[in-house]
Amino acid sequence: MSEITCWFDFASNYSYLSVLRLARQQDVIVHWKPFLLGPIFKEQGWDNSPFVLQKDKGDYVWKDMPRECAKYGLPWRQPSAFPRRSILAARVALLGEHQPWIAEFCARVMLANFEHDEDIGNQACIAAILTSIGLDAEALLAAAQSPDNKARLHARSDEARALHIFGAPTFFVGPEMYWGNDRLSDALAYATR
Amino acid sequence: MSEITCWFDFASNYSYLSVLRLARQQDVIVHWKPFLLGPIFKEQGWDNSPFVLQKDKGDYVWKDMPRECAKYGLPWRQPSAFPRRSILAARVALLGEHQPWIAEFCARVMLANFEHDEDIGNQACIAAILTSIGLDAEALLAAAQSPDNKARLHARSDEARALHIFGAPTFFVGPEMYWGNDRLSDALAYATR
Repeated sequence: MSEITCWFDFASNYSYLSVLRLARQQDVIVHWKPFLLGPIFKEQGWDNSPFVLQKDKGDYVWKDMPRECAKYGLPWRQPSAFPRRSILAARVALLGEHQPWIAEFCARVMLANFEHDEDIGNQACIAAILTSIGLDAEALLAAAQSPDNKARLHARSDEARALHIFGAPTFFVGPEMYWGNDRLSDALAYATR
Repeated sequence: MSEITCWFDFASNYSYLSVLRLARQQDVIVHWKPFLLGPIFKEQGWDNSPFVLQKDKGDYVWKDMPRECAKYGLPWRQPSAFPRRSILAARVALLGEHQPWIAEFCARVMLANFEHDEDIGNQACIAAILTSIGLDAEALLAAAQSPDNKARLHARSDEARALHIFGAPTFFVGPEMYWGNDRLSDALAYATR
């Protein structure tokens, strides 16, 4: 079976498109790599998303997103806060990386942020999502915030840097890197060649 | 007949893809808008292309380009200098904007830069291109560098700012803005709806 690795940030609107598209894929194994863009952006000297720092680009993105969502048949509501704090969701996703619930969890967090305009930085939001898919929210939230798991998310940032990742989503098929939801079809075509 | 407006910079590698694709289009009227990204980037506080300033992104772009060119059936050689000075080519293109030779001129300048690795900032390079399509190079280069025409290119930058253009290529179909070669198919689909 073909394989693809997907690096994504729950705060990233273009990651939303790719996570939902990949969560639907049946014919490829997805390796989910939740990570935080913040530390990557910080190294560029940016203290926020470029979509906030560059006003014209940011304004454009909110015109681009409804068109993109229509293209892929995905729901869309512009979040009332952007970018949202994604560290808690990323920590939980780290725990689920190799679990059968990972795709569903990622899709639901993304929909909470970009369809339902919910604050995914809020523990109650993540707990509700975990419960909705039949998981023990309390135990997972405690494990997610354990020192060990926090250290794993730090290590994930180092891994991203080592791979020269500069944005999200970013895909790898073997050593081939593809940046952006606009390259997901190419990456999948290469994976299934 | 459907219409699309294409804002592009001869120094921009993703503009290269779009200019060549549009130069082949028979079923849509293209309004060519040569402009300079430099002044737009300067307002962001950037003194060079983001592909130079952001090393990881720049390194990626040179892996992305051969794949993109293969996808669109376009030739590709990574320029030995990037970004090249595009002001002279832009000034000539401004003169040709409403002339039958504009598409061919733009395509040849782009190929000089991104297939033949020629210095399009050099007057001899632009003169050779003009001559190759049967035009009076000497007269056009003189007109291109007249005070009036220089002022027109300045005004073009103001026009780009007024439209909130932040990168190239950028397309308009009526008031709808599309940024990047990755959106050209969507823009064309919308234009011919």
